[in-house]
Amino acid sequence: AAVRLAAEVHPADLAEFVLKMPAEARSRLLAWLPPEQAAQVVEELPAAVQSEVLAVLGRRRAGAVLEEMSSDEVADLLGELPPQRAVDLLGLLQEDEAADVRSLLAYLDDTAGGLMTTEFVALQDDLTAAEAIDALRRLAPDAETIYYVYVVDREERLQGVLSLRELIVAPPETPIRQIMRTRVVTVPPDMDQEEVARVVAKYDLLAVPVVDGAGRILGIVTVDDVVDVLEEEASEDIYRLTATPHGVAAAGSPWLRARLRLPWLVGLLLGELVVAKVIQGFEGTLERVAQLAYFIPLLAATAGNVGTQSLATAVRGLATGEIARGQAPRVLLRELQVGLLLAVALAATSAVLVYAVLGDGPVAVTVGVAMGVNTLVAAAIGVLVPLALHWLRVDPAVASGPFVTTTLDVVGTLVYFLTATWLLFRAAG
Amino acid sequence: AAVRLAAEVHPADLAEFVLKMPAEARSRLLAWLPPEQAAQVVEELPAAVQSEVLAVLGRRRAGAVLEEMSSDEVADLLGELPPQRAVDLLGLLQEDEAADVRSLLAYLDDTAGGLMTTEFVALQDDLTAAEAIDALRRLAPDAETIYYVYVVDREERLQGVLSLRELIVAPPETPIRQIMRTRVVTVPPDMDQEEVARVVAKYDLLAVPVVDGAGRILGIVTVDDVVDVLEEEASEDIYRLTATPHGVAAAGSPWLRARLRLPWLVGLLLGELVVAKVIQGFEGTLERVAQLAYFIPLLAATAGNVGTQSLATAVRGLATGEIARGQAPRVLLRELQVGLLLAVALAATSAVLVYAVLGDGPVAVTVGVAMGVNTLVAAAIGVLVPLALHWLRVDPAVASGPFVTTTLDVVGTLVYFLTATWLLFRAAG
Ligand SMILES: [Mg+2]
Ligand SMILES: [Mg+2]
Ligand SMILES: [Mg+2]
Ligand SMILES: [Mg+2]
Ligand SMILES: [Mg+2]
Ligand SMILES: [Mg+2]
Ligand SMILES: [Mg+2]
Ligand SMILES: [Mg+2]
Ligand SMILES: [Mg+2]
Ligand SMILES: [Mg+2]
Ligand SMILES: [Mg+2]
Ligand SMILES: [Mg+2]
Ligand SMILES: [Mg+2]
Repeated sequence: AAVRLAAEVHPADLAEFVLKMPAEARSRLLAWLPPEQAAQVVEELPAAVQSEVLAVLGRRRAGAVLEEMSSDEVADLLGELPPQRAVDLLGLLQEDEAADVRSLLAYLDDTAGGLMTTEFVALQDDLTAAEAIDALRRLAPDAETIYYVYVVDREERLQGVLSLRELIVAPPETPIRQIMRTRVVTVPPDMDQEEVARVVAKYDLLAVPVVDGAGRILGIVTVDDVVDVLEEEASEDIYRLTATPHGVAAAGSPWLRARLRLPWLVGLLLGELVVAKVIQGFEGTLERVAQLAYFIPLLAATAGNVGTQSLATAVRGLATGEIARGQAPRVLLRELQVGLLLAVALAATSAVLVYAVLGDGPVAVTVGVAMGVNTLVAAAIGVLVPLALHWLRVDPAVASGPFVTTTLDVVGTLVYFLTATWLLFRAAG
Repeated sequence: AAVRLAAEVHPADLAEFVLKMPAEARSRLLAWLPPEQAAQVVEELPAAVQSEVLAVLGRRRAGAVLEEMSSDEVADLLGELPPQRAVDLLGLLQEDEAADVRSLLAYLDDTAGGLMTTEFVALQDDLTAAEAIDALRRLAPDAETIYYVYVVDREERLQGVLSLRELIVAPPETPIRQIMRTRVVTVPPDMDQEEVARVVAKYDLLAVPVVDGAGRILGIVTVDDVVDVLEEEASEDIYRLTATPHGVAAAGSPWLRARLRLPWLVGLLLGELVVAKVIQGFEGTLERVAQLAYFIPLLAATAGNVGTQSLATAVRGLATGEIARGQAPRVLLRELQVGLLLAVALAATSAVLVYAVLGDGPVAVTVGVAMGVNTLVAAAIGVLVPLALHWLRVDPAVASGPFVTTTLDVVGTLVYFLTATWLLFRAAG
């Protein structure tokens, strides 16, 4: 019955079902499924639940399940556990499997090495198409994909690639050497996962081989994991642009959600206290021209909007590869040109509108001048922050959106009141 | 030479190269390549360049290239052209190909129907595994993928699915009826592309069949197009959250970039003029307690940050499917609970900090009370806007981020000065 259930229901659906069960029922269900099906279900569970379930399963059973999981999933799971427990579970695996997993543990999570699996198909180049298909038939149970066949020499160096489609279509006696592609798209193990995703997207690949400096194939990154990377990086960028902490979406209780969000909000609030101090510093100016207060939000909001637009364009350009490494100066220059045009347009617009609303020429000019300066500063800071972080090879956990707007609030308010003091009083005497 | 060039260089790289050439050189290169290779290159070009290139190619040649393109790509291309020209190009195709493309043109761009191709492999269930593999060999040149085989009855109704992997591993004489999976994951043609992407991601599919109400298979959506959808939707969400117009990343000149961004900025600036009018309406209050002005940015920024966090959580939850249709009331309730907790915490924090900075009890209490109200309103509006749009089945082009913060600036300023007027004067007499 267990076998039939597992064969009919997709592991991803079974995993959803398992998540809704009480903890002991989970382990019972997984003990009851054949190890192969249990492994597929465990692969779909969140890391926390995976280790919990394995802990209760009993050593022999846990070992059998781990053995059937793909090596990248085992490495990800062990990487999340306390070292002592990881070593213990590693001991349950057969030696070759354990060696694979150990080698994967050496790579950073968000790199090609951290994403790859060692369960790819590699063949020597002296086979024929028919022999290669026979080999695939044998290797299929342990391979992550059999749709790409990597051709290697005796030293495991990558010589070419063949798709199963090409193998099927080729006359059976053709040596694979003759039909393989020798210009293989590869990635190095330390390439950032986002860049790996771009390579797979650009060439419409089902998998990409990860190759070391000597040309040896270390593993492959498959498209299903690339899809997950794209989802993850999109979330990361959106959360970062909005000071939303990562864990929030998964956090259960309102208490936990509030506690995760609060530190960011309080931190940014402290920045706005600096703004309050700046305005207080211009107490005299404000007392003489109280109308200046009306336009504080207008200036702050517009600079914030300009800065956030620049930020979003840069963050997205970096994510999609439109902004390549080394292009930073050109991007900054272009953004400054855009900023200058926006500054002129917004300065004129706001001066006219303020005059229309208030009928006060000097205040209108003050708002216009401050608007122009702030817009230019906003465009510059909005694009400099992500470019600088990228250049430093930091994928920042920093909430760059509100960080930028808060900085702009401080700078913008200072610019506004300096302009006002200078234009309205110093000029007047 | 052309054939060798095309065989050695990937079409995606050739397309990049073509984009850098002058317009006439482009057509010459594409006229020189074999139609099959030219088609692969054209598929990788942006829509505007595609139609330009086809226009210069000459009718016969253009027809040959279109014939070799996959039907979803042809439909996307024709959908971008003036109807007259689209009909003209359709006439260049053979009748069955033209019929396929015509049927695809009926679907909205961002639905399963708009993404699918008609070039899938469908077989009858009375074949053996070996016969099925033979059929694949024959059908491969015209199929988008041969890794999934769809089993249909005489009325084209989907009966099951088989992977080439399963076919290869099965004993040659097994009837495919016996090895096919009958619980097939399918999507309807009007399903939103983002939901299609989630299905493919969840089940780690290389393609998903699109099936009509009668169970007939209309086409398949392949994973390479899903990868593009994820990129596109992530950009869309980020741009929307930051009032960044869509075309900006691709726009060439600073002039064009500034012109695209300006309408959003001016629109939002008009909202902030309303804020100015609100403050002006409380002229008397402000004149009596000038210190109130110091905390306008603090209140506005914090409410904006809370609202944007709520917005980002909701937008991301909708994108990843964590918030399913029908869960809106529950999500709103949870967000209101979180908002209430944040309101209490931020009200207390800000009142204490304001007192510390200014030493003025009544102003500190005013800021605290206004902060509490604004935080709760911000959490509610931040989550209501995306949920409402989603419920209305609108995928809004609206810049919801700054739209929300600008609304909050108006509401928040009003709340602040009403609170101040009431607490500081009405209470005092
Ligand atoms: Mg890993
Ligand atoms: Mg692609
Ligand atoms: Mg493509
Ligand atoms: Mg994997
Ligand atoms: Mg990123
Ligand atoms: Mg990253
Ligand atoms: Mg075709
Ligand atoms: Mg389409
Ligand atoms: Mg997946
Ligand atoms: Mg998976
Ligand atoms: Mg396609
Ligand atoms: Mg969307
Ligand atoms: Mg959409």
